[in-house]
Amino acid sequence: MRDRYTDKIIPSVTSLLGSIQDVGRDPRRGGYSRPVFSTAELDLRGWFATEAERRGLPVETDRNGILWAWWGQPQEGALVTGSHLDSVPGGGAFDGPLGVASALAAVDILRSRGVEPRRSLAIAVFPEEEGSRFGVACLGSRLLTGEIDPDKARNLRDADGTTFAEAARANGLDPELLGRDGQALARIGDFVELHVEQGRGLGDGGPAVAVGGSVLGHGRWRMSITGQGNHAGTTAMADRADPMVAAAQIILAVQQAASGVEGARATVGRIEPVPGGTNVIASRVDLWLDARHPQDAAALDLVDTIHGKAQKIAAFEGCTVSLSRESWTGTTDFDAELRRSLELSLPGAPVLPTGAGHDAGILAGHVPAGMLFVRNPTGISHSPEEYVEEADADAGAAVLADVLQDLL
Amino acid sequence: MRDRYTDKIIPSVTSLLGSIQDVGRDPRRGGYSRPVFSTAELDLRGWFATEAERRGLPVETDRNGILWAWWGQPQEGALVTGSHLDSVPGGGAFDGPLGVASALAAVDILRSRGVEPRRSLAIAVFPEEEGSRFGVACLGSRLLTGEIDPDKARNLRDADGTTFAEAARANGLDPELLGRDGQALARIGDFVELHVEQGRGLGDGGPAVAVGGSVLGHGRWRMSITGQGNHAGTTAMADRADPMVAAAQIILAVQQAASGVEGARATVGRIEPVPGGTNVIASRVDLWLDARHPQDAAALDLVDTIHGKAQKIAAFEGCTVSLSRESWTGTTDFDAELRRSLELSLPGAPVLPTGAGHDAGILAGHVPAGMLFVRNPTGISHSPEEYVEEADADAGAAVLADVLQDLL
Repeated sequence: MRDRYTDKIIPSVTSLLGSIQDVGRDPRRGGYSRPVFSTAELDLRGWFATEAERRGLPVETDRNGILWAWWGQPQEGALVTGSHLDSVPGGGAFDGPLGVASALAAVDILRSRGVEPRRSLAIAVFPEEEGSRFGVACLGSRLLTGEIDPDKARNLRDADGTTFAEAARANGLDPELLGRDGQALARIGDFVELHVEQGRGLGDGGPAVAVGGSVLGHGRWRMSITGQGNHAGTTAMADRADPMVAAAQIILAVQQAASGVEGARATVGRIEPVPGGTNVIASRVDLWLDARHPQDAAALDLVDTIHGKAQKIAAFEGCTVSLSRESWTGTTDFDAELRRSLELSLPGAPVLPTGAGHDAGILAGHVPAGMLFVRNPTGISHSPEEYVEEADADAGAAVLADVLQDLL
Repeated sequence: MRDRYTDKIIPSVTSLLGSIQDVGRDPRRGGYSRPVFSTAELDLRGWFATEAERRGLPVETDRNGILWAWWGQPQEGALVTGSHLDSVPGGGAFDGPLGVASALAAVDILRSRGVEPRRSLAIAVFPEEEGSRFGVACLGSRLLTGEIDPDKARNLRDADGTTFAEAARANGLDPELLGRDGQALARIGDFVELHVEQGRGLGDGGPAVAVGGSVLGHGRWRMSITGQGNHAGTTAMADRADPMVAAAQIILAVQQAASGVEGARATVGRIEPVPGGTNVIASRVDLWLDARHPQDAAALDLVDTIHGKAQKIAAFEGCTVSLSRESWTGTTDFDAELRRSLELSLPGAPVLPTGAGHDAGILAGHVPAGMLFVRNPTGISHSPEEYVEEADADAGAAVLADVLQDLL
């Protein structure tokens, strides 16, 4: 791409992403599966460190596994940008990596402009943003800010039973040092995260980049429905207490309850019958509920309503149900002053709320944080169909450079 | 136990099973997970070979992975007993191993009685009876009898994507030699399988052993429901084509359809959303349908009804659905003459049909085959709660010895 101010040629964001386009492809699901600390995610971290060091930005890993690449000395009150490299299972190419690649490209642009930073700038990469391996989204930023109890984090388990403490140790971290890191947090004077838009908030033909307004309140709950495991062939229909039948009714109750509340979203995207054999009536079905609403009370009321319906359904089927909250973050408005700066740098850009959670949303409770969203023409994300046009990706990096230049 | 005829002391069936009580325990699901060719199932095969050789019964593995332990020279028209050692995920201790251990104990009893066989006797152990790893139940006996196309068998995949051909090769078999084995089949003059009862057909206080009457027609179908994968937070409820919501309605349609047909059983015990992330609206949901009925046409009609309902549900949700049959076996009556022999050896024993599939049911289409069922006081199977009292297990082995003695 050519920088609009200097006309100098800068490597495009798409070419940066091109060098990781084969890392962590998932032939079964389509798209990419790059869970935290997997070979794929570690390869991406390696790629980031190489790209940063090629730009003369030394990289350090803090005690929560966050990577920091520094332009200038690490210092309090620095300007920080960045995103994450992990993905949901079968996710797209842009959710996370677009923000990291755009940050690298923005540094290239600022340097081509001869910008002399008045304060240090860091590019940060946060681990386990998606929560796809250990179940808690934005785990890195929650640890950094103390928004999750480190004991709870250490004991999170992946599908194979590995704890986060074990995975952290295997990747060179000391699990005892996980948790709030006041020194690292104090280094974030302002945080700006660029991210692919995850809806259709940016229509064709209009601006390619929007300013983030707020992050919708959202949480995850795990529901366990327990019935009576038995043989699928020898147990008459009338003699069953089948938790799968209860789970099916609960999934429909989730959809019905959320559809009845303006602005609410509730989803069951993950379900695991135990033992999970074709010729076995399950003894237990675990399912995960993702629920969101712009008003915190409405989101929590919705989950209460669903829980009440689930209890009635389970009782009718001779089953029991338990609900436990895995995470919850209230609706977060981004820092008003930083948002005004972003809006001034992007005259005419729309301001979009987002239904997705982001590390910037977690950080916003502690430091000034804001977001930029780049157009996704499909409006689809967490899917291989997520997409960003090459020109829009470069426009995003240029806008990020403008914003950083104004803030530096 | 003491043999009722000679009063000699014979190791009990429970003591034989005691030596494998720690093999393949599943701490997460409870009970045992012993899929074919897993470390656990291989350990059980090793245990069987050791026990057989300790009794002077040389063991051979045929080209379909079936173990044969021979008392006397391998010959056409031999008397064969046996069962399987693999389990469903989180299964009980008796489904399969009870028949194998009882066969070993029956040989001990026959020898203590000084029985001189007029024909050779073999104990057979069939692989993948449960179909819990590669999806087709009774895979070993289907291969032996040619009831599954060997190409189809070679290409079956487990959850990790390993084909049956690869697993067979890794365990010393030549995948090219899988399939109908006329020579091995001709060696089975009569086949008697002892198995734990999987319902409550044998009440308290009555006889502990029943004679098998027939095996209910049963099959497995895989249903794939395809919708639009998307982000759980950014996609409004009204904009979704969520295959999980369609799957939930289909699970309820399965239950409703089967409940409306006398004698029918239909179950969804396994479901896999793709990609399966908490914060992801699934793009596809795969579910497996197990359907059974004493009349073959009624079972197949039931599946047609369910398929028709599934198509309507999927269309209403903006999804599509496809159905494919993974296996089907019609209702099988055991050999009338062999059944009369068993009844003569067990005066007063009830004759029970079974809703479960068995290798004896597959073999019954090719050679005279029969079954004995041992009381299960819980009536529960494919679950850790499956149970056999020590006295009933020994009674089962004694009855098996009587039956084999009459047939030898």
